[in-house]
Amino acid sequence: MINYPNQMKKKPTTLEVKKRNLKKANLGTDFESKLNESNKYYLKNNIASIYKKPTPIQVVKVDYPARNKARITEAYYRTPSTTDYNGIYKGYHVDFEAKSCHASSFAFVHIFKHQIEHLFTIDKMGGIAFLLIEFPLYHEVYLLPSKVLYKKYLEYLNGGKKSISYLDFKKDGFLIKEGFLPPIDYLPVVDLLIDKILK
Amino acid sequence: MINYPNQMKKKPTTLEVKKRNLKKANLGTDFESKLNESNKYYLKNNIASIYKKPTPIQVVKVDYPARNKARITEAYYRTPSTTDYNGIYKGYHVDFEAKSCHASSFAFVHIFKHQIEHLFTIDKMGGIAFLLIEFPLYHEVYLLPSKVLYKKYLEYLNGGKKSISYLDFKKDGFLIKEGFLPPIDYLPVVDLLIDKILK
Repeated sequence: MINYPNQMKKKPTTLEVKKRNLKKANLGTDFESKLNESNKYYLKNNIASIYKKPTPIQVVKVDYPARNKARITEAYYRTPSTTDYNGIYKGYHVDFEAKSCHASSFAFVHIFKHQIEHLFTIDKMGGIAFLLIEFPLYHEVYLLPSKVLYKKYLEYLNGGKKSISYLDFKKDGFLIKEGFLPPIDYLPVVDLLIDKILK
Repeated sequence: MINYPNQMKKKPTTLEVKKRNLKKANLGTDFESKLNESNKYYLKNNIASIYKKPTPIQVVKVDYPARNKARITEAYYRTPSTTDYNGIYKGYHVDFEAKSCHASSFAFVHIFKHQIEHLFTIDKMGGIAFLLIEFPLYHEVYLLPSKVLYKKYLEYLNGGKKSISYLDFKKDGFLIKEGFLPPIDYLPVVDLLIDKILK
């Protein structure tokens, strides 16, 4: 392979981009499937009803190869209006965004401004809103309450740090217990957040 | 056009099916857009945060014509796990399915069993769950609490009526006030349901 001067990167081919995106998608999917397993467990045991929202897709063309079968032949991914997960637990509305973070800090470029604002709105309206971050580097998952996220985000908008470090998560977030079933047991931490509301 | 014997219907062409489906889709969309307008109004005025969930789509093939652009070239509609709408109002988790009903009764074939069970689960867990039905024939929209829906559904499973009539909606449901903004003002009826919980 040619070594480009000044570490200039060769433009990746379509196949390389595809492979990279698939790899990213798979890594994220591990966390996602563990979360979905946890939510299934919570539902089955009448603990909570929390679901991942479908990915928003703009459908452009649909074919009807058979009477009752619609095949979408052109569509595009859209920006989600809100967050990935929501539902009900102990009568509370629960709402969160979940991300897998492959660095040692979570950069604000990986979350939309309107998603942070959405979480803050849920919080103001009496719901339980947070960010759930998996750090594969440390084999740990943290819950960061929306209030902390919003505070850090405002600091960033005013010239502060562009990301929330792993150490910040350790300090201001809550470590989630992982196990066999549920794989990511985040509701005990939600209990702590509910206790704070009630106090 | 040939008149078939015994009123036997000619199999519709693909184009006819497409046209019919589009017509159906448009009719439903009027109600949907009015509901979305209402939810936008509620959010803008800090009254509630309620959203329609995206339609679940199973993506099979994706092309990458440009580096950051993904074009879905094969996908299929999937069965939704839950209901169309959910969110938070006065701290309560709100969850409902909305349907446009072009007959004088709402048949159970137009809602999935697991959607009715989902609404009942939300109800049991302390949320506010209901069915919102538009009757274009009568220019009216009704809210039917999940408890009533579930009762009628159990009767149907035990050999009872296959549908809920317009008169049943008048009797056991709540008429929604329609206006300019919000076009479908359903939260005052949700207030009545909250009052029932608190009593």
